[in-house]
Amino acid sequence: MNQTAAQGARALLPRWVVPVVPEGRVLEDHAVVVDGERIAAVVPVAELEAGHPGIERLELPDRVLIPGLVNMHAHSAMALLRGLADDLPLMRWLHENIWPAEKIIMGPDYVRAGTRLAIAEMLRAGTTCFNDNYFFPDVAAEVAVASGMRSVMGMPVIGFPTPWAETEDEYFRRGLEFHRQFVDQPLIGTSFVPHAPYSVGDGAFARIAQLAGELDIPVHLHLLEAPGEVESSRAEHGLHPLDRLDALGLLGPRLLAVHMTQIDAGDIPRLARAGVHVIHCPDSNMKLASGICPVADLDAAGVNVCIGTDGAASNNDLSLLAEMRQTALLAKVSSGNPEAVPAARALSMATIHGARALGMEDEIGSIAPGKQADLATIRLDRIETQPVFDVISQIVYAVPDSQVTDVWVAGRRVVESRELTTLDEAEVLESCREWQQRISTAIGDDPGGT
Amino acid sequence: MNQTAAQGARALLPRWVVPVVPEGRVLEDHAVVVDGERIAAVVPVAELEAGHPGIERLELPDRVLIPGLVNMHAHSAMALLRGLADDLPLMRWLHENIWPAEKIIMGPDYVRAGTRLAIAEMLRAGTTCFNDNYFFPDVAAEVAVASGMRSVMGMPVIGFPTPWAETEDEYFRRGLEFHRQFVDQPLIGTSFVPHAPYSVGDGAFARIAQLAGELDIPVHLHLLEAPGEVESSRAEHGLHPLDRLDALGLLGPRLLAVHMTQIDAGDIPRLARAGVHVIHCPDSNMKLASGICPVADLDAAGVNVCIGTDGAASNNDLSLLAEMRQTALLAKVSSGNPEAVPAARALSMATIHGARALGMEDEIGSIAPGKQADLATIRLDRIETQPVFDVISQIVYAVPDSQVTDVWVAGRRVVESRELTTLDEAEVLESCREWQQRISTAIGDDPGGT
Repeated sequence: MNQTAAQGARALLPRWVVPVVPEGRVLEDHAVVVDGERIAAVVPVAELEAGHPGIERLELPDRVLIPGLVNMHAHSAMALLRGLADDLPLMRWLHENIWPAEKIIMGPDYVRAGTRLAIAEMLRAGTTCFNDNYFFPDVAAEVAVASGMRSVMGMPVIGFPTPWAETEDEYFRRGLEFHRQFVDQPLIGTSFVPHAPYSVGDGAFARIAQLAGELDIPVHLHLLEAPGEVESSRAEHGLHPLDRLDALGLLGPRLLAVHMTQIDAGDIPRLARAGVHVIHCPDSNMKLASGICPVADLDAAGVNVCIGTDGAASNNDLSLLAEMRQTALLAKVSSGNPEAVPAARALSMATIHGARALGMEDEIGSIAPGKQADLATIRLDRIETQPVFDVISQIVYAVPDSQVTDVWVAGRRVVESRELTTLDEAEVLESCREWQQRISTAIGDDPGGT
Repeated sequence: MNQTAAQGARALLPRWVVPVVPEGRVLEDHAVVVDGERIAAVVPVAELEAGHPGIERLELPDRVLIPGLVNMHAHSAMALLRGLADDLPLMRWLHENIWPAEKIIMGPDYVRAGTRLAIAEMLRAGTTCFNDNYFFPDVAAEVAVASGMRSVMGMPVIGFPTPWAETEDEYFRRGLEFHRQFVDQPLIGTSFVPHAPYSVGDGAFARIAQLAGELDIPVHLHLLEAPGEVESSRAEHGLHPLDRLDALGLLGPRLLAVHMTQIDAGDIPRLARAGVHVIHCPDSNMKLASGICPVADLDAAGVNVCIGTDGAASNNDLSLLAEMRQTALLAKVSSGNPEAVPAARALSMATIHGARALGMEDEIGSIAPGKQADLATIRLDRIETQPVFDVISQIVYAVPDSQVTDVWVAGRRVVESRELTTLDEAEVLESCREWQQRISTAIGDDPGGT
């Protein structure tokens, strides 16, 4: 384990650079100069020596350099529940499997171990920033800082008692305490994470709308995920969920609306006008048969669409490369248009669109001078990714996570030739084995699956 | 490169064995005894010594042993066209990109290099048998035999001249010559591969129906892949493609019908009655926006559904693990039923269902005494696949190809700790680089993709 912090100036020399902005651009024979935690320059290799005499060079042959991926919807600690209950509908999965298991194991120790497992997986897959939605964000934030990973951690609000908080007031009190504790941490942002319209009351939503404005932070919400949510909202509140959120002051550019499979054509212009960001989680939506978010139409209407993996319990991996591919594929087949969400657009959704939704567009999400050096390199010289006719197509449609070789967050090399430098892999695996035992015992399950 | 042939008796001792038949079964503490090219026994480890004293043991800790995967629809050589033209509709993709490129490069050298690249990728991903559909099957078969991989190679028939054959008669003559040349090769099967109803005439189809019966081989056909095929068949032949094939004597258990996205509920009982096998290629169908094959309904009606990757030019990988996952996910979201195609069923589709369609159910597709030792081991001890609550869920929903460690075909270890033993990886890559150059020059493309 090598605790390399951000270093002085050095030049990365990959075969290709995909800066993401402008969309579709592929640079060859360019160097990316990193100084401390930031990108200092992107220059033709021929001009490197003149502008940066004697600079340290890191050759990255046959590799493409991309901005680190931004995972816009994670429940990190749930990595420990990967594969616990599959092939089930959302409400049975939640009520009969996930929530009972969480009830038994929820606490700082579980969140610490689970978040560490998730971060190890995400970093090795080229993700440099994640937007988390879970309990004990203070514990998760400590793990993320220690791992050198960037994250936005949510303050949970849900309409029933959990080990994190008993009452509505306690949810807000503990959340705001967490916010104050981490607000100055450079790698950590905060958000509100009310669970969903069906599990959070009007009073709590109104309070969130006010506080999010005061603190200038996003509201990260499961919204219109599965069939029945419109009907139950009308029955309980007399309103469509979008009308209810609008009335409560939440339908605006702070809102990160996750899933959105239950919207129709009429909702799209309204979402565009309001500046709502949509977070698409195609693997999870497909696996739980929740429905299909009309990503191509949202994108065409100017809605900022980003991509998230959801938790490993409903995916069952935390790969944004896979989720990008799925975004493109599902958009094409569901719209009947093979030109919908082309590869370069999918890559934008997994990088700069996420940065924009988090209010961090000037800091991350593309490779440009002045931005944070959140970067990933992918090798394309393996059998699985040869030949290379189009670098961006290759990244989106063919590259497996295992070909991500090196990752930097704020200039710090957190993955080096596929090895984690800030986390001890053996320790992560050992703790994972212990938790598997503990969870299996708690729920009376047999790991063999028989 | 280690040209290990099938050895004498030895016992494989993985942590888990998933025999596939019976569906859903997971064995722990079992050994699989392999003798020569066949599986001799599956026994509890405690009984191994008594039944097989002193047998050579291969410990496979933290690994699951599965039957080798059966890729039911490949255009292997097209691996060299991976990423050449993406985000395009089927007919533009075929007519403006793939066919013009093929016209320039088609020949034995291209097929040799491309098939070798595809086999390298497929073996490393746990695929031990592929059902191929391309030109120069004699060349592809030579490569497959030399690589120690099992395959069924098709005799192409298409209604226009290609470098393989000029006239209908020549297609049949060359095809049957190939059949005679390879009929006694234990690793090679043969089939007819008429391209599609819209590109093959009645006379050729009738001849295929007769010859396939005489030779007792399958007919592997692109069928109802994309919108418009029903209408154009009615316009040209006055018949729905299924009626036309029925009239020509092809709608029966020899038919391997690939894609089938344009069928409706009324077609399903008819396909079941006829014993047609359906080959589902979800990644390709999604990427080309061809449509969605109603796999859950076909399966429920008793149709034998198998899985194929299609060619790398429309996928863009040859991973059956990914295709299994996609089969399960797409079936769930398109049927609105999260219980559709559960993990164990997806695994059956990628193994024993394929074997059944090829008429090889007694030889391959599951782990059972007397069957061919076509096997793959997958390590589950990495961060990306921990914890393990359900082994089969893990294989289908979480395992990346890079965790396939060892592969045997007919008892011969063709992949050993991720290294190919029958192919020289450096040579495959070198030849791939040459072909990329040749193809780029031919079509005037710039590899940078800019």
